[in-house]
Amino acid sequence: MTTIMNGRLLAEEMQEKLRLKIAQLKEKQLVPGLVVLLVGDDLASQTYVRNKSITAEKLGINSQTIHFPSSITEAALLKEVNKYNHDDRYHGILVQLPLPGHIDEEKVLLAIDPKKDVDGFHPLNMGKLFLGKPETIPCTPYGIMKLLEAYQVKIAGKQAVVIGRSNIVGKPMAQLLLSENATVTIAHSNTHNLTALTSQADILISAVGRADFITRDMVKEQAAVVDVGINRDANGKLTGDVDFEQVAPVTSFITPVPKGVGPMTITMLMEQTVRACQKQEFDK
Amino acid sequence: MTTIMNGRLLAEEMQEKLRLKIAQLKEKQLVPGLVVLLVGDDLASQTYVRNKSITAEKLGINSQTIHFPSSITEAALLKEVNKYNHDDRYHGILVQLPLPGHIDEEKVLLAIDPKKDVDGFHPLNMGKLFLGKPETIPCTPYGIMKLLEAYQVKIAGKQAVVIGRSNIVGKPMAQLLLSENATVTIAHSNTHNLTALTSQADILISAVGRADFITRDMVKEQAAVVDVGINRDANGKLTGDVDFEQVAPVTSFITPVPKGVGPMTITMLMEQTVRACQKQEFDK
Repeated sequence: MTTIMNGRLLAEEMQEKLRLKIAQLKEKQLVPGLVVLLVGDDLASQTYVRNKSITAEKLGINSQTIHFPSSITEAALLKEVNKYNHDDRYHGILVQLPLPGHIDEEKVLLAIDPKKDVDGFHPLNMGKLFLGKPETIPCTPYGIMKLLEAYQVKIAGKQAVVIGRSNIVGKPMAQLLLSENATVTIAHSNTHNLTALTSQADILISAVGRADFITRDMVKEQAAVVDVGINRDANGKLTGDVDFEQVAPVTSFITPVPKGVGPMTITMLMEQTVRACQKQEFDK
Repeated sequence: MTTIMNGRLLAEEMQEKLRLKIAQLKEKQLVPGLVVLLVGDDLASQTYVRNKSITAEKLGINSQTIHFPSSITEAALLKEVNKYNHDDRYHGILVQLPLPGHIDEEKVLLAIDPKKDVDGFHPLNMGKLFLGKPETIPCTPYGIMKLLEAYQVKIAGKQAVVIGRSNIVGKPMAQLLLSENATVTIAHSNTHNLTALTSQADILISAVGRADFITRDMVKEQAAVVDVGINRDANGKLTGDVDFEQVAPVTSFITPVPKGVGPMTITMLMEQTVRACQKQEFDK
């Protein structure tokens, strides 16, 4: 029996809880605020930012998107970040990546007040995560953990394989699974015998970005499979990394694309914004 | 053919280079300084600290050990850390762990100026390491990488298994091997079928702390084996995690205990102190 892990549904449930929580905070004159800094005209970035802002507003978060031309200097952007670090209306600051080539992304992420880093990309937050004392967590792996938890997928003692070693998905994903006592392997473009590896995985997370990359022969019977890929097939249809038709029947749990990981990512951003708001007010 | 990776020898070579570098710095009136804060009367800690200080002095580093009674308050210790953060004579600050139970280790590590964190334990440095842009690195895994490099052990594309997931050995070790393009698995006390896993490892790092834990059947033919364990056998003799007699003949490379990883750890502390000195002077 295969269970489809419905990220859309879980996201809706979590968002409804957040909406109620935000309404309660408002009774105490507290409005969680999120400012998004968007640089340049990347279409995908614009879509992501718009979706974040629509969700934020729906939940009652005070959301503001500041759009800068791609010609903005690094110094000017750092000044903007610093301005919002000191603006009490905003508890979360998100700098949409990628940034134009002339701006050092690392420098910009380092400039965000770690308390307002609701994306979990600041090195200090990354360090706390790896040390096993997370404060904010990159939203995609965080959302995946919530999904696995909601569907009661067993993690402790299981073999987990994460394909992809990005700073925002693969590496933090591995750490989160490790902290739940999985035996974790990180595989990537230099991995030999990938199939031998993945076919031993009780939990398989694919963050590769290639349609139909994960085929039937790569998946262990009864595995839990999480598909982080967002790809377009030849007909322009949204598709993940996993050949869903072939693979789903042998799994015990699987996420679809769309309606899998995607809605969870945005929800965790909202959750971390609300949490940042509560923490910053508490610390005042 | 088995090659014994002689950490003692490599450490001596590296220390000799450091000694010359420090002599050059002194010609420019620059003396690298390392202050070690030791709390309480733990015998093992006292031995470690003494060894660090002897090595530092031998190389020409200005080394100072400050010994506090175990009754020191957290606030008082934090004040001491802060004092040395602002003391230009010391480029490196090391707080010897463990600290007494009434002191929050995390808080103390966070208080060290990351630039002076020559142990690489500060969350910010840990974060930078995991993001692939390390500044300082925990000395044991850093030393192991130097040893693998010196003996030209191939890492890219290889299967590496790290047993142990401590913040100061296992996790940073996994990250360093990953950054050299190994496929990395972290195993630990919750791992099932450890032998099935380790017997596929081209590179096996054991940081378990149990004598004779790694037996012949757990090791792949021609593997490179690194033994991070420091244990005493029934006769009080120093021994690692690996049953050396049985295992060594099947490996291509192996570290002994003693004279393997241990001397490298202390050497990397010295190297990072010298580097911190150069960087702090450069940034002035």
